[in-house]
Amino acid sequence: MNTEEIVAPCSPRSGAHLALRPLSMERVRITDGHWARWQRDNRTVTAPHAMRWLEQDGVLDNFRRLVDPAVTAERRGWVFCDSDLYKVLEGIGWDLSHGPSEEFGRFVADSVELLERVREDDGYLNTFVQAGLKDRYADLTRGHELYCAGHLIQAGIALARTTGDESLLAIGRRFADHLVAEFGEGRRADTDGHPEIETALVELYRHTGERAYLDLARQLIDVRGHGVIGPGLFGPAYFQDTVPVRDQDTVVGHAVRALYLLCGVVDVYLETGEDALLQAARRQWRSMVGEKTYLTGAVGSRFEGEAFGDRFELPPDLIYGETCASIASLMLSWRLLLATGDGAHADLIERILHNAFAGSTSLGRDGFFYVNPLQRRSPRPPAPAGGKPLRTDAPGTRAEWYDVACCPPNILRTVASLGGYLATSDDRGVQLHLYMPSSVHAEPAAGEVALSVATRYPEDGVVRVTVERTPASPWALSLRVPSWCRQPALTVAGAAVPAERDERGYVVVEREWAEGDVVVLDLPMPARLTAPHPAVDAVRGQVAIERGPVVYCLESVGGALDLDAVEVVVGAELRVERDADLFGGTTVVRAEGRLRDDSAWAGEGWAEVATAPAAAGRPIELTAIPYRLWANRGSSTMRTWIPAART
Amino acid sequence: MNTEEIVAPCSPRSGAHLALRPLSMERVRITDGHWARWQRDNRTVTAPHAMRWLEQDGVLDNFRRLVDPAVTAERRGWVFCDSDLYKVLEGIGWDLSHGPSEEFGRFVADSVELLERVREDDGYLNTFVQAGLKDRYADLTRGHELYCAGHLIQAGIALARTTGDESLLAIGRRFADHLVAEFGEGRRADTDGHPEIETALVELYRHTGERAYLDLARQLIDVRGHGVIGPGLFGPAYFQDTVPVRDQDTVVGHAVRALYLLCGVVDVYLETGEDALLQAARRQWRSMVGEKTYLTGAVGSRFEGEAFGDRFELPPDLIYGETCASIASLMLSWRLLLATGDGAHADLIERILHNAFAGSTSLGRDGFFYVNPLQRRSPRPPAPAGGKPLRTDAPGTRAEWYDVACCPPNILRTVASLGGYLATSDDRGVQLHLYMPSSVHAEPAAGEVALSVATRYPEDGVVRVTVERTPASPWALSLRVPSWCRQPALTVAGAAVPAERDERGYVVVEREWAEGDVVVLDLPMPARLTAPHPAVDAVRGQVAIERGPVVYCLESVGGALDLDAVEVVVGAELRVERDADLFGGTTVVRAEGRLRDDSAWAGEGWAEVATAPAAAGRPIELTAIPYRLWANRGSSTMRTWIPAART
Repeated sequence: MNTEEIVAPCSPRSGAHLALRPLSMERVRITDGHWARWQRDNRTVTAPHAMRWLEQDGVLDNFRRLVDPAVTAERRGWVFCDSDLYKVLEGIGWDLSHGPSEEFGRFVADSVELLERVREDDGYLNTFVQAGLKDRYADLTRGHELYCAGHLIQAGIALARTTGDESLLAIGRRFADHLVAEFGEGRRADTDGHPEIETALVELYRHTGERAYLDLARQLIDVRGHGVIGPGLFGPAYFQDTVPVRDQDTVVGHAVRALYLLCGVVDVYLETGEDALLQAARRQWRSMVGEKTYLTGAVGSRFEGEAFGDRFELPPDLIYGETCASIASLMLSWRLLLATGDGAHADLIERILHNAFAGSTSLGRDGFFYVNPLQRRSPRPPAPAGGKPLRTDAPGTRAEWYDVACCPPNILRTVASLGGYLATSDDRGVQLHLYMPSSVHAEPAAGEVALSVATRYPEDGVVRVTVERTPASPWALSLRVPSWCRQPALTVAGAAVPAERDERGYVVVEREWAEGDVVVLDLPMPARLTAPHPAVDAVRGQVAIERGPVVYCLESVGGALDLDAVEVVVGAELRVERDADLFGGTTVVRAEGRLRDDSAWAGEGWAEVATAPAAAGRPIELTAIPYRLWANRGSSTMRTWIPAART
Repeated sequence: MNTEEIVAPCSPRSGAHLALRPLSMERVRITDGHWARWQRDNRTVTAPHAMRWLEQDGVLDNFRRLVDPAVTAERRGWVFCDSDLYKVLEGIGWDLSHGPSEEFGRFVADSVELLERVREDDGYLNTFVQAGLKDRYADLTRGHELYCAGHLIQAGIALARTTGDESLLAIGRRFADHLVAEFGEGRRADTDGHPEIETALVELYRHTGERAYLDLARQLIDVRGHGVIGPGLFGPAYFQDTVPVRDQDTVVGHAVRALYLLCGVVDVYLETGEDALLQAARRQWRSMVGEKTYLTGAVGSRFEGEAFGDRFELPPDLIYGETCASIASLMLSWRLLLATGDGAHADLIERILHNAFAGSTSLGRDGFFYVNPLQRRSPRPPAPAGGKPLRTDAPGTRAEWYDVACCPPNILRTVASLGGYLATSDDRGVQLHLYMPSSVHAEPAAGEVALSVATRYPEDGVVRVTVERTPASPWALSLRVPSWCRQPALTVAGAAVPAERDERGYVVVEREWAEGDVVVLDLPMPARLTAPHPAVDAVRGQVAIERGPVVYCLESVGGALDLDAVEVVVGAELRVERDADLFGGTTVVRAEGRLRDDSAWAGEGWAEVATAPAAAGRPIELTAIPYRLWANRGSSTMRTWIPAART
């Protein structure tokens, strides 16, 4: 087993177009703290929970019934639900990098055996089509056949990289060969309605060296935007099929589709160096982060079409903010970080992880949000016990599973592979992007480096990096200074040095190192108030409470406090306090607030400015909790943006 | 023909529970001006356009194919599309109060003949069920069988009232008898997913005196709210089936369903006097107008489920604001006005008519909006020529028709019956609610009264009422003073008198009248700035320009002016000007504004308050047009609420 291959999703074959090189998952370990606990729970709670739901939902029976006459069930679930199995397999695959598991090994072996029997001789595999419910490739707009193939390939890649077992990958590769035969070299001019196959094919190229996969990935990117799909229910923009990707300036349409596509676009760039692809992806990313991303990192404002909205269309209450879209934004940002080295991409990854992503999952790790609002105006019915609501129901608490079950397995695979996103290296040295207790091994030009990172981040901002092993010649340690941090402080081997950000957002310490050298980066984390871009109408006149990378919110369990009437006093002190009882210990922020009395607004919901009722209300103390923790105490109201009451 | 019967929708049988009595449509005529022109266009353009679409869409063939072997087409369209025909017939019915029409007469006769052949022996009539696509009443949740029956009955009522021809009503009545046999006296405990039958059955009771119809209407209201429907795709609240109507405090779920139901509720109150029904409807109406109604009168903030949102959830861009919901709100408000005499209901009717409703229809009267936003951030593709978009597409210009075609015929029937909403009488006198050039005949206790109203309203606010005929004994003329008007002035027979609003919002002049007496009510109409309720987060810090009952908007055809960056200076002069060239002559409002320069906001769409870029920009002059006229010059951006730049 070649440990260099155990790299999280996105492992470029050539380093030619990489600003930064990803590190093997063997070489980066999350050793303690919140995320290490989540990785353990991911293995012991989330993965078994997902495996049970695959059974309960009939996903596995959909395969079995095709080869086992004893399974007489009708095919169940959505056209794309084969991918539920593949994403769980991928999650298990990445998880196996943390150590063997008999249960997972058996599940993988059983799945491989089943899939091997179900697949057709030419490599094709899809339970919906094989059940006779549709013809092959007869409905690329909605059929998700290539989408499912992509997830199958990614699952195979994960297992091959972490365990060396290529049996699942072989099934995916056969399917890929079939796709090349069917679509490759321009044999078809259309493509799947849901991108995903593109990034998977590039990964398969990376693993196998087979150029046809890369060529097909590029072809499927090239045809898109020329009106080859649809129109479907929401029109061609939903499918990113109105503007060719190289000409597009912003993210449009179904958010997950848009971002999976861009992952494939950057993947093709990383292998081919075609600059137009990188520039298109960067333009779209910049538009996304500046004009179409929520403070929590969530994206996709519209329920209708699960889509990106217009520029600055960012309502906190009517948001869709699909969990999978947050994950896709993270995946894209990671690829752009590798391609450019620009810490802005890591800033967004951190924002997503600590907020939108962390908030998607219950503290028990067996409940999930599909829709991730920044404001909940009235307590909704809690998720049904043992049930799977429609995604559009947006229940008041996290649900065990969903009718469309894309998000929970996506969370599973992301947590399992999280170590892959912490650090990188280049010839000059090592870069730390995300701060967690961890161990990092890398090999810059100078030689083998080992680091250990100790930190309570984001409880506080002190990051202590110990050089455990170093070559004699100098190399550079780069530490990201998040965009929110105003006054970082740095000590190197006990001596304070200026903590100056370079143009990429990192402090870089280049020197001859000795084993045992300690670098301490202190990122002071006073609570702060954040304003939205002035064009975001939906939260104008409101501010958010943040501390470090953590977005805070006000929550009222059961809705007892009228959060529609709450304001926060701008300019007053924000007190950071530890509440030892809340969620087993949480840092809260207390703020001076006001509770408006709107009773003078009887009748109509508007009034002439000149004669409108004067503001009235009384002071209250507000307690803000980390956004990620909301809705863990039952159905509640919540708001992240709070109207500003100026002193 | 009994002219007393030619009353617009809602003609209570007994006056016992009426605060105000509606007037026969024979007795109220819109004689000139904008609305009279629209009524003419409604007859010459909209009605023929609708009849063509009924043919083109296969709505008529759906009936023909059941009785004519030569029509071999498959049944087409939605499960509820029989109601398209019924609503067009109802519109034609009300229109025939304005004079005979050979074309309409033929269409009605042909339709009656067809329906008479299609209906089953027991009175049942539904092309979806009769086509064998579903069993009778097997799917009340989605089937719309009673909904369609309701519209059939309403069409019959309209034709009977205006022409005396009861042939269509007879078909509706047979269906109603069948419903009584099937559902009445508690024979079934469930009801239709879409309210409509309730108000129709009460109207049928009014016309026939048959108590069983009223009893069934009340039964169908009573069972609702007890979980007898659904759950359907959006849960029971969508169907108003979680809380019994007498216990409900606010409007919830699908907006048209919620409001059609309440129309039936007030209708039952008006016949029975059950106070709990009136109070429930008033509570829900008050919540709607104070917390869930847009400035234009539109309601229903959510695309998802076409539904009312939470209190204060009123995003101007992601609004649904279905045209039919505006109409339903108008219908409910009219019933409450009759029941209570409270001018607040008439205020809302006026707001809806001049804004949400007027804006739903193109100036050519053959294009329609289904979705009625208060802000459009980017120009959308125009509606396809000759095509019918999905309602959810929300095209950039008004479409000829829709895949779900409920709105255009609803507009048709509302314009045709508009005269019914202008005036009422009671024993004491006559009340004028809406100001249009019109003639009004009424019979208060004192005797026969005739009035003529001359006005350019809302171009200006001068309303000149001439008493054309009067009894000798005194009676009271009540003129509504809209809630927006701060300083009304009144002259009676040349003498200025104090224009004091009574508790219902009217100035009341009670005296002995002479023929030729003139009352002039002057409602000064400076342009004004309006603020939203402080809890409406989506437009906090924004103001709207209004003048009289007219809501204004900024529009940029093609999106050339960046409306995301525009602000209006609060406190500066608003100039009212006539633009003779615009739309053939329109009153615009010019305001001092600023065009923000947000270029310092590079990167992320948020910033720490303490270090956020300072506001920058330059002065511009803003020209606001009446909201109702937007999107008549091609696809555009538009905003009604404008960020306030304080001087």
